[in-house]
Amino acid sequence: MNFQKYNNTNYILGKGSINYIREYKDKRIALVVDNRVIEALNLKDKLFNEILKGCDYSLICNIDKEPSIDMLDPYISKIQKYNPDIIVAIGGGATIDAGKVLWLFSELPESTWDNIFSPNEIEKFTGKVSLIAIPTTSGTGSETTSAAVVKDKDKRKNLILSDEIIPTKAILDFDLLKSLPASVVIYSGVDALAHAIESAVSQIASPFVEMNSICAAVEIIENLQRSVEGNQESREKMHIAATIAGMGINNSITGMAHGMDYAGGDFNLPHGLVTGMLLPYTMEYLIPQPVYEKIATRLGIQGDYIEKQKKLVNIIFDIYNKIEMPICFKEIAIDEKSYLNHIDEYVKLAMKDPNNLLAPKEVNEKVLKELFLKFYYGKMGEEHE
Amino acid sequence: MNFQKYNNTNYILGKGSINYIREYKDKRIALVVDNRVIEALNLKDKLFNEILKGCDYSLICNIDKEPSIDMLDPYISKIQKYNPDIIVAIGGGATIDAGKVLWLFSELPESTWDNIFSPNEIEKFTGKVSLIAIPTTSGTGSETTSAAVVKDKDKRKNLILSDEIIPTKAILDFDLLKSLPASVVIYSGVDALAHAIESAVSQIASPFVEMNSICAAVEIIENLQRSVEGNQESREKMHIAATIAGMGINNSITGMAHGMDYAGGDFNLPHGLVTGMLLPYTMEYLIPQPVYEKIATRLGIQGDYIEKQKKLVNIIFDIYNKIEMPICFKEIAIDEKSYLNHIDEYVKLAMKDPNNLLAPKEVNEKVLKELFLKFYYGKMGEEHE
Repeated sequence: MNFQKYNNTNYILGKGSINYIREYKDKRIALVVDNRVIEALNLKDKLFNEILKGCDYSLICNIDKEPSIDMLDPYISKIQKYNPDIIVAIGGGATIDAGKVLWLFSELPESTWDNIFSPNEIEKFTGKVSLIAIPTTSGTGSETTSAAVVKDKDKRKNLILSDEIIPTKAILDFDLLKSLPASVVIYSGVDALAHAIESAVSQIASPFVEMNSICAAVEIIENLQRSVEGNQESREKMHIAATIAGMGINNSITGMAHGMDYAGGDFNLPHGLVTGMLLPYTMEYLIPQPVYEKIATRLGIQGDYIEKQKKLVNIIFDIYNKIEMPICFKEIAIDEKSYLNHIDEYVKLAMKDPNNLLAPKEVNEKVLKELFLKFYYGKMGEEHE
Repeated sequence: MNFQKYNNTNYILGKGSINYIREYKDKRIALVVDNRVIEALNLKDKLFNEILKGCDYSLICNIDKEPSIDMLDPYISKIQKYNPDIIVAIGGGATIDAGKVLWLFSELPESTWDNIFSPNEIEKFTGKVSLIAIPTTSGTGSETTSAAVVKDKDKRKNLILSDEIIPTKAILDFDLLKSLPASVVIYSGVDALAHAIESAVSQIASPFVEMNSICAAVEIIENLQRSVEGNQESREKMHIAATIAGMGINNSITGMAHGMDYAGGDFNLPHGLVTGMLLPYTMEYLIPQPVYEKIATRLGIQGDYIEKQKKLVNIIFDIYNKIEMPICFKEIAIDEKSYLNHIDEYVKLAMKDPNNLLAPKEVNEKVLKELFLKFYYGKMGEEHE
């Protein structure tokens, strides 16, 4: 039998909550960090000379980009040799994903790359080692999900998927968000918005996911602009809402914006930029959806059932305008001919993507092609404000 | 250092999800059930002859009222002798609380009643035994909290408090809500409403609690009446919202409605009846609160900052009227003289109650006395509709 689930992790939160690491002072602590983040936050002295002072710790690696098999291989033997009780991962989604992989190879040292890419072949963890995830961006949700992405030798993305790799604890320290560049706040914020809305509207969304993800979507829409402008309270709310949206995708799936993001890889664009950009167009296509109407109601939007949903899409375009989030590939100068040449291939890929197959309305090649064109040219003459 | 936390459990949900027990078919399963519920739901045959068929299980006990030390003592030796891998508790808050206590004595057999009533004396569990909580009411939140209530020989309530006793998993099977009597739906529903609103508004509410508990409050206000009327979708939403409200109190605290509920014990009234009844009066006193305004906004209530909050309180009174929930002690024929004689004692108790000390506005004896009078006579001439 298949059951709907709502799995999540436990959280420590608040300004300065990175100090929670001190609770593990008698343990062997392995660190997986993004050095750029440590530098930007001026965290080095505090982390190594205060929090970890006198602790038995080992800095296993610096992970500042999406992990690959080649990149991780030497760190697997390093962490297995160190034999930690606790792995602490500090950084964005890539760093936390690397932490999950190193956790898996610490817990199950007999694992091979081949078997961990097959979900059913990952055994139950022994509980000997714990993973503490400390996200420094608000968006990927990696601190709460059962997934990690690792590139293989051909640069293809492989997914590791197992409830075993949901971090033991996530620490949401709002102080770590202070030095985020505006582009990261924007792209991770709109990605989190896509996670919230898409996980709620999917065919497989349970009422638990729907309730929490709608809540996250509303908070993100209310706080994204102020968060980009640097408002601390809004950044804190975005950080929490992004993690709730992460639980949403973890217990449901993403949707069409994630199922049509192929241009991201081909033109080397940040993931959040692409999924966030595609989101309002795919929503427009999926109207009417009770989930959209509910989000609109919670935001205080007036109108009849359909009007409220159209207004919601326009509000999203309006926020994008205010935060200078691009709304089409043309706007960011992606080569027109090259993009158009890819569309037939994208349509084929999108027709098989579970994100689209589990969307709440059927898609076909014609619909997808029209959407891919809209993504390039924008709303084709319509006003967004 | 003290840290804010957001601890919770993992969920299995949906109609028929009690069948998830089959996942444990190779384990030793100890059952703690409320027989009345099993009877009312006609669950006996399905549970014992289908789901548990061929399993190694033992029916440890029937718990159909608040557990006491005397009641549980014989079951402690019984469950320790059976030595289970999994304890399954099926029932309301009392049954699940009993399951938590028996879990504790299974995990830590050296425990004594004295040491488990001291939060810091409960050791870390070994992980050998798991507790699966299957709530059959929507309100107590016990399936997600770190608390259990046990009466001692003097019938005083003692609290066991430890993150270790948060159930390993909660199963939210909507089919189990079908035979709930209207009074249980009402009292547990208004108790859950108090959990949601009070946990969000407390001085110690983290932004994580605030976000989720506001979400739960909104869903409960929208669904309570239809749930009482028997609408299945609303009952499902109430079940989920009540568990989110349970996470709220687990990571924050309840408030004045829970901190002034002494008449419940003296006049032998259901807990939810009392806390739900007191809630709108205490909210009225606490206005203005940003949390109330946000709940009102999410519900689509119009008006200025204060108007919206007053309207919210009136909407709650209005729902009470529609679902025939009493709104004062006089209405349920509590003896006037006897109640009035207790007020001075209640004021003294309430002045020391953490629920009131951590409320977002200071209380004093005069304020409390006025509230205790309002609880008896109702809104004293004001209209509630």
